[in-house]
Amino acid sequence: MELGLLYSGGKDSTLAALLLDEFYDVQLVTAHFGVTDDWKHARETANRIGFAFNRLDLERAVAEEAIARIREDGFPRNGIQYVHQHALEALAAEGFDAIADGTRRDDRVPTVSRAQAQSLEDRYDVDYVAPLSGFGRTAVDRLVEATLEVTVGPSEEIKRADYEAELRTLIAAEDGPEAVEAWFPAHEQTYVTDVQQLTAKRTE
Amino acid sequence: MELGLLYSGGKDSTLAALLLDEFYDVQLVTAHFGVTDDWKHARETANRIGFAFNRLDLERAVAEEAIARIREDGFPRNGIQYVHQHALEALAAEGFDAIADGTRRDDRVPTVSRAQAQSLEDRYDVDYVAPLSGFGRTAVDRLVEATLEVTVGPSEEIKRADYEAELRTLIAAEDGPEAVEAWFPAHEQTYVTDVQQLTAKRTE
Repeated sequence: MELGLLYSGGKDSTLAALLLDEFYDVQLVTAHFGVTDDWKHARETANRIGFAFNRLDLERAVAEEAIARIREDGFPRNGIQYVHQHALEALAAEGFDAIADGTRRDDRVPTVSRAQAQSLEDRYDVDYVAPLSGFGRTAVDRLVEATLEVTVGPSEEIKRADYEAELRTLIAAEDGPEAVEAWFPAHEQTYVTDVQQLTAKRTE
Repeated sequence: MELGLLYSGGKDSTLAALLLDEFYDVQLVTAHFGVTDDWKHARETANRIGFAFNRLDLERAVAEEAIARIREDGFPRNGIQYVHQHALEALAAEGFDAIADGTRRDDRVPTVSRAQAQSLEDRYDVDYVAPLSGFGRTAVDRLVEATLEVTVGPSEEIKRADYEAELRTLIAAEDGPEAVEAWFPAHEQTYVTDVQQLTAKRTE
C-alpha cells in the first residue's frame, strides 16, 4: 500500500516514517509554497534515511490566508493549523492509498480531530493515519533518543522544512523582521540528521 | 525499552504488537480473573508470532463491579471500560518502561482519554502508548488483511482472551445464559492465528 507522509525533516515526522515503514510503501512528502528552498533540507534527510521523497506544491493563497490569520491573532497557531489542513487535502488528492502526518498526542498544533480525519477519508477514499497520535511527549522523546540523530536549536536557526520557515520569510518581507519576532515565540526545534539504529528483532 | 502490551489474541492488539516491535522489547500481557482458561488462547498466538507472553492477575472484585454495572446498564460498554482501566493500572504497576493497548481511533470501548493517559504516566512514571489510536477502522482492516491470518466468527464462539469471555462466564453463572444473550449484543470477533508476512524493507 502506497502511503504519503507529510514530512518536515523533524523528529516527529521522521519517527512516523519509521513506524509506518514496516506496513506501507512510504513516500515522504514536503508541502511548500515555493517561497524558499527549505524543502531541500527535508529531501536531504529523506535520502540519508533511505525513503522516497517528493514535493507537494501548495497555493500561495493558502500562505497569504495563513499570514492574515497570524497577523490578526498575533500568534501562529491558527495560521499553521490552516496550512496543515490544506496540505492534508492536497496530499489526499494525490491518489495514495493512505496519507499520514507526524502529529502527536500532546500537540496543540497542528491537530486533526476524529471528525476531520473521517471527513478526509470519506471525501478522498483514502486512509488517514497519525501513527504518533497515541504517543505522548515523553514516549516520543525516548524513541527519538534511541533511534535518531538530531540537531536541536532555536527555531529560527534550525534548517528544516516545516511551514513555519516559509511563513516567517513571507511575514519578514511583508511586515518586517520584528513582526516575526513578535508573533513567533522562540522555541526549540529539532532537525534529524540520521537514523542511529533501525533494527527489527523479529523481521528477517 | 521494556513495553507491556495488553493482549487478547485479537487483531487489534496483535497489530499493535507488530507496530511497537521495532522500537520496544514487547511483552504481551493478558489480564484475567482466573475464571476460565481463555488466556491460553492468547499465549498460543503469542508463541506462534514469536512474542514474549505473561499473564496479569486482576482482582475478582473488579469483575464483580464490572458485572454489577453491566447488570444495571443492560449493556456491557461501561463494565468493559471499567475492567480496561483496572487492567492498565495493574500493568502500569508492573515496572515496565512503557505500557500499551490496542485501542483504535474509532473504538467506542475501551477508550483512554488524553487526561487518563497523562494521569497514568504521571502516577506510575511510565509511558502509555496506543499505537493504533491514530488508525481508523478501514486502515486497521487493510493492515490486518495484509499482515495477519485471522479467524472471524460470532463473539460467543471465537476463542480469544479479552475480558468479555470471563465476564460472560461469570454472568451466565450468576444471572443465567439468557442474561448474557440479552446484555451482550451479537457481534463478530476475530482471533489471530498467525502472521502472514512481517518483512521490513529497510531493516537488515
